[in-house]
Amino acid sequence: MFRYGMVGGGPNAFIGDVHRTAIRMNNDCKLVAATFSRNYEKTLDFGKQLYIEKDRLYKDYATMAAEEAKREDGIDFVVCVTPNISHFEVCKAFLENGINVVCDKPLTWTSKQSEELVRIQKEKGLLFGVTYTYTGFPAVKEMQNLVRTGEIGKIRFVNAEYPQGWLSEPIDENSKLAPWRMDPKISGATNCLGDIGTHIENLVSFVTGLKIKRVSARLDSLVEGRTLDDNASVMIDYEGGAKGIYWSSQIAQGYDNAVRIRVFGEKGSLEWVQEDPDHFIFTTNDCAKRIVSRGRDAFCDEAQKYSRIPAGHQEGIYEAFANIYKAFTTALATKDFDEKDAEYPTSEMGLEGVKYVEACLKSSRADSTWVEIK
Amino acid sequence: MFRYGMVGGGPNAFIGDVHRTAIRMNNDCKLVAATFSRNYEKTLDFGKQLYIEKDRLYKDYATMAAEEAKREDGIDFVVCVTPNISHFEVCKAFLENGINVVCDKPLTWTSKQSEELVRIQKEKGLLFGVTYTYTGFPAVKEMQNLVRTGEIGKIRFVNAEYPQGWLSEPIDENSKLAPWRMDPKISGATNCLGDIGTHIENLVSFVTGLKIKRVSARLDSLVEGRTLDDNASVMIDYEGGAKGIYWSSQIAQGYDNAVRIRVFGEKGSLEWVQEDPDHFIFTTNDCAKRIVSRGRDAFCDEAQKYSRIPAGHQEGIYEAFANIYKAFTTALATKDFDEKDAEYPTSEMGLEGVKYVEACLKSSRADSTWVEIK
Amino acid sequence: MFRYGMVGGGPNAFIGDVHRTAIRMNNDCKLVAATFSRNYEKTLDFGKQLYIEKDRLYKDYATMAAEEAKREDGIDFVVCVTPNISHFEVCKAFLENGINVVCDKPLTWTSKQSEELVRIQKEKGLLFGVTYTYTGFPAVKEMQNLVRTGEIGKIRFVNAEYPQGWLSEPIDENSKLAPWRMDPKISGATNCLGDIGTHIENLVSFVTGLKIKRVSARLDSLVEGRTLDDNASVMIDYEGGAKGIYWSSQIAQGYDNAVRIRVFGEKGSLEWVQEDPDHFIFTTNDCAKRIVSRGRDAFCDEAQKYSRIPAGHQEGIYEAFANIYKAFTTALATKDFDEKDAEYPTSEMGLEGVKYVEACLKSSRADSTWVEIK
Amino acid sequence: MFRYGMVGGGPNAFIGDVHRTAIRMNNDCKLVAATFSRNYEKTLDFGKQLYIEKDRLYKDYATMAAEEAKREDGIDFVVCVTPNISHFEVCKAFLENGINVVCDKPLTWTSKQSEELVRIQKEKGLLFGVTYTYTGFPAVKEMQNLVRTGEIGKIRFVNAEYPQGWLSEPIDENSKLAPWRMDPKISGATNCLGDIGTHIENLVSFVTGLKIKRVSARLDSLVEGRTLDDNASVMIDYEGGAKGIYWSSQIAQGYDNAVRIRVFGEKGSLEWVQEDPDHFIFTTNDCAKRIVSRGRDAFCDEAQKYSRIPAGHQEGIYEAFANIYKAFTTALATKDFDEKDAEYPTSEMGLEGVKYVEACLKSSRADSTWVEIK
Repeated sequence: MFRYGMVGGGPNAFIGDVHRTAIRMNNDCKLVAATFSRNYEKTLDFGKQLYIEKDRLYKDYATMAAEEAKREDGIDFVVCVTPNISHFEVCKAFLENGINVVCDKPLTWTSKQSEELVRIQKEKGLLFGVTYTYTGFPAVKEMQNLVRTGEIGKIRFVNAEYPQGWLSEPIDENSKLAPWRMDPKISGATNCLGDIGTHIENLVSFVTGLKIKRVSARLDSLVEGRTLDDNASVMIDYEGGAKGIYWSSQIAQGYDNAVRIRVFGEKGSLEWVQEDPDHFIFTTNDCAKRIVSRGRDAFCDEAQKYSRIPAGHQEGIYEAFANIYKAFTTALATKDFDEKDAEYPTSEMGLEGVKYVEACLKSSRADSTWVEIK
Repeated sequence: MFRYGMVGGGPNAFIGDVHRTAIRMNNDCKLVAATFSRNYEKTLDFGKQLYIEKDRLYKDYATMAAEEAKREDGIDFVVCVTPNISHFEVCKAFLENGINVVCDKPLTWTSKQSEELVRIQKEKGLLFGVTYTYTGFPAVKEMQNLVRTGEIGKIRFVNAEYPQGWLSEPIDENSKLAPWRMDPKISGATNCLGDIGTHIENLVSFVTGLKIKRVSARLDSLVEGRTLDDNASVMIDYEGGAKGIYWSSQIAQGYDNAVRIRVFGEKGSLEWVQEDPDHFIFTTNDCAKRIVSRGRDAFCDEAQKYSRIPAGHQEGIYEAFANIYKAFTTALATKDFDEKDAEYPTSEMGLEGVKYVEACLKSSRADSTWVEIK
Repeated sequence: MFRYGMVGGGPNAFIGDVHRTAIRMNNDCKLVAATFSRNYEKTLDFGKQLYIEKDRLYKDYATMAAEEAKREDGIDFVVCVTPNISHFEVCKAFLENGINVVCDKPLTWTSKQSEELVRIQKEKGLLFGVTYTYTGFPAVKEMQNLVRTGEIGKIRFVNAEYPQGWLSEPIDENSKLAPWRMDPKISGATNCLGDIGTHIENLVSFVTGLKIKRVSARLDSLVEGRTLDDNASVMIDYEGGAKGIYWSSQIAQGYDNAVRIRVFGEKGSLEWVQEDPDHFIFTTNDCAKRIVSRGRDAFCDEAQKYSRIPAGHQEGIYEAFANIYKAFTTALATKDFDEKDAEYPTSEMGLEGVKYVEACLKSSRADSTWVEIK
Repeated sequence: MFRYGMVGGGPNAFIGDVHRTAIRMNNDCKLVAATFSRNYEKTLDFGKQLYIEKDRLYKDYATMAAEEAKREDGIDFVVCVTPNISHFEVCKAFLENGINVVCDKPLTWTSKQSEELVRIQKEKGLLFGVTYTYTGFPAVKEMQNLVRTGEIGKIRFVNAEYPQGWLSEPIDENSKLAPWRMDPKISGATNCLGDIGTHIENLVSFVTGLKIKRVSARLDSLVEGRTLDDNASVMIDYEGGAKGIYWSSQIAQGYDNAVRIRVFGEKGSLEWVQEDPDHFIFTTNDCAKRIVSRGRDAFCDEAQKYSRIPAGHQEGIYEAFANIYKAFTTALATKDFDEKDAEYPTSEMGLEGVKYVEACLKSSRADSTWVEIK
């Protein structure tokens, strides 16, 4: 069993619990150290509930990084699930102490920070995963495979979207809906684009292999009194001539977490929506539209090995997270530190995501002028 | 019974037959005159098949307009279903001869032409319908009603699309798929945007009442060797602060005629897709997502009166066309020549559509710079 | 143009209008004679609205049959859309006068009556169509073709249903919902089974070619105070070993006209639902589930020739009716009086339907004992 | 943390792993003892992989029951996931040793056996859960609530089905698809009905509260050479006048695990399908059809407390299992041994299921004669 620690993810943090639960599903890691909160009492209380030894519940992440690095039975990796603002400092501290990292997305506020993290990681020869969840689904992996093996031909156009409706009404300070999301001091210069728009960028990149050349973006704050964006439209030019359009929104009533990707190539197309994660639609010119089903239809080995239960029983977000951790611990076990064929999203993908956000912000501020991504 | 004539719509023209069939469904008009083709023999042959008297089968539209205008039993209106290039001259000829007109969309090549048609029509006090089909569906009319009555509040964002897949492969000259669509001499400066993109513009305008302030467009020719666009992405700023994004495509394999409109307001949202025309989705903050069904659920009178058969039996494109003609002949019967509350798309909507196309073309040629619509 | 007459189908009769509209779509028949109502004034009024000459508007069907038979320009066929109770006498009168017949389903009250109609028809060498609508859809015809060509192998099981919700509340005498449906004197011994259950029987028979050997039925009157059935469950044993289960209901809230057929064979399965009539699902062991689309995917000639508009524009019940009439008038034109390869439902299918109803009634009255159909 | 043991569920047993994973998700139980296989070596090997102490890996279940009962740190409950044939003896052994039990469904071969288990359990004052999974879904719990609170009125009709396609081809002895399923010596007198038909019975009972009065069943072996049933149709009469129809099948190509329940009442209806577990359809006479969404729409407390992640992220079979275990361990923690308001399926429900199977078998063998359930 691997040993891992967690920074952030206290009792009311939804995503921390998802990480821990997903990891337990795999049954190959044990949570042994944590700094759940800036409030030490809270960390102690919550750590006790999670059966963590008291001496491995830390006052702050810096102490934790230093102490765990010293222990013979120190953690094999840390999971960073703090608000976006502190990702950089937390990850940096653990990397510098020689500890592998898994961090939530978006990786950092600035691409410069992400570049620094990548640099340190490479110097130290460590693993660094970024939990872009949607790449963990077997159906998504199989779509990547169909693109790679040429089943839909050279890609021409991508239409991808991530509509949510939960921020369609103003949220007040007492709302259970995390108000920090709308606080530029915590969330950075973007809310919707950074939170869910980046999932689109990563998902499309993963499935298609396309590199973004330039973006023309318009970020909107459509709910009165809101300063950060709650809706974003982006036109994309990819290298090689393909085109795309991305839309993310948090004011789209009727939608919950409806990430949808549609890829059109010379020979066919692919379509997947996260709310029905076990199926995707595959259309080619020589066959009727197919609904491909995980567990029933043949997937390539790289996708099939992440399929856990028989067809017809939906695998959801826990399984997707668990698959990312499975890939990460497999790399840990095999000491695959170059991450060349990593089956989890790497820090370099995290860096791409931050560059994408920066370019979109720049474009939007310049009235949607095209901005190149280098 | 009203008497009508047709220009264009010969034996191989799909859309001419749709118009004639839809009109027959209403049982209130009779086709009595025609110029189906530039080839007089073809007109004579086809006219005979359609039981039209020989002396009312004309060599050209100009003669037809002049002769029908003279007859006591002359046509009450003409239907113009020629290729886009000749809409202007045909419509003009009939208007000048005092004959009401129904014309296919897009109305003309240039907005100047459309403006001239509108001017003549108003001078002559005639009716002028443009067959933007999708406004004919009862479900679309009911969505308009829900917007008007404030059910979804002030509109914030619109996402509309019209994906088709039938031009995803190169078409050659011998193709049954109308090759003139890709010929700039016949189709004008645009294919996809003008043919189906205009449907989006009209449909959104009809449902939401929003006016477009400016557009940022990118027209693509994604199939090798193609000169005209087969894919178009447009960002929209509406007057009053709402935003939108439109996508039309003819290279989207897996889609047939999947016009989809999604409208998000302060209080709720609406969604409709033409491939399931009798239903729409209506979501508000105080109720679970609703699937509203024509024939079962209560529609406003203006929508309900166009519902023909019980719920659960799909009404399709013939019915939508027939509804537009029903509205048109009702206006004819009641001599409602000011068209203020017209229940069919008017020439002014046709003009809006041409302006939209012009602005998108201008924007696309200027690397997606925003272009205002006046 | 063929000339036809109509018995029944007055101004408030929904189905009469559907027949007339469907026939007009084909543009090959003209309505020239009628007895719309037992009330002669009503027939005269309505006939005038429909542009029928006064001398061909008749006081009763018997006079109409006799008079039309005498005319040189007499009707080529009559359409009988009266309440079920009078189908027998009306059809008989026209057959005996040598006039071809199209009659609504169910054909008659008793199988003896249907047998007599078939006998007279054959003696006279006439055509006799029964408007089981659902066989008119191209997708249904293509499913029949896939069964015939062995694509799903020998059939093992059929699950078919026809749920509606419109009778889920008691209807009173003033209801617009035809109260005669619940009057045994007009509707016969069954409501739900006879009205919509027979559609299932015919549709399954058409698609699969299976013959019913015996039935075990339970007819329910689930709404308080109702004497006739509003729900029916039937277990079927087919000849040759296949099994089936049919369910029809008029108290199924949430459903409008959701005829659904699912056929499972040794090699694959087919599924179609009338509310999405242009598509069906085709699953085989060697391919992912396919959504086959009329107009896009290749259909056999017998199905394709009934496809009228491009894919993605739904063809509905009018088109299905029109297709049945098209097949009927084609047989008229080619004088195909043996009906061996009739592409419309014949009187013999009508007879099968009545036998099915009789057997189900007998079984239900005997506490669902198996009853053989001979 | 509770301590639990497992009997059955060795390395190749799919369902054993599902139980263990689901339990880990809850983070409130630890697997500390097991008899995974009749082969002791296998138990030792597999137990080691699962970090179980060697001295608590047992040669047989009887020893395990006796030894664990003696330990101070003995297991709090045992999970029985052996083939159906041995459920009775295993459960009995643990009950007699005073150990709480969770057992897979169907509970036993005979109702007499189930009655004996219930009797011992009650004598000993123990908890006994049966893992009818589908009652674990929040959406299913909310449907139960809507029935209980009268939202759809008195129930009239239920149509429920469980189609699968995975046994549509003959399976041979070497097949990975468990061949014991088709072996009467292991599976008992039924395959399809016992394996998945019982899920229908339990699910309907849970949601509706209806008691079955009598059944008319037809069990089919539709694949050549098969002795046990692979398809079953059952007509149901409930106490109080409601009617139902159940269909389960393993030869239904195109379906994976499509458990579907449709309940029709005087005021409305409910529909749920397991392949989209987070939503259900709710139709009433005074509102359009609603798609109710877990996590977004308001559920009653008893349902909501089992909702783990935000709307739009599907919760699947692991979560459903975990919810059953959560309810079970909550009862353990609160020592709620009378199980009156148990939120997990109890042994009495298990007994009902076995009675249902027995009655269906008896009916089917008597040519579908009605058989009462006492």
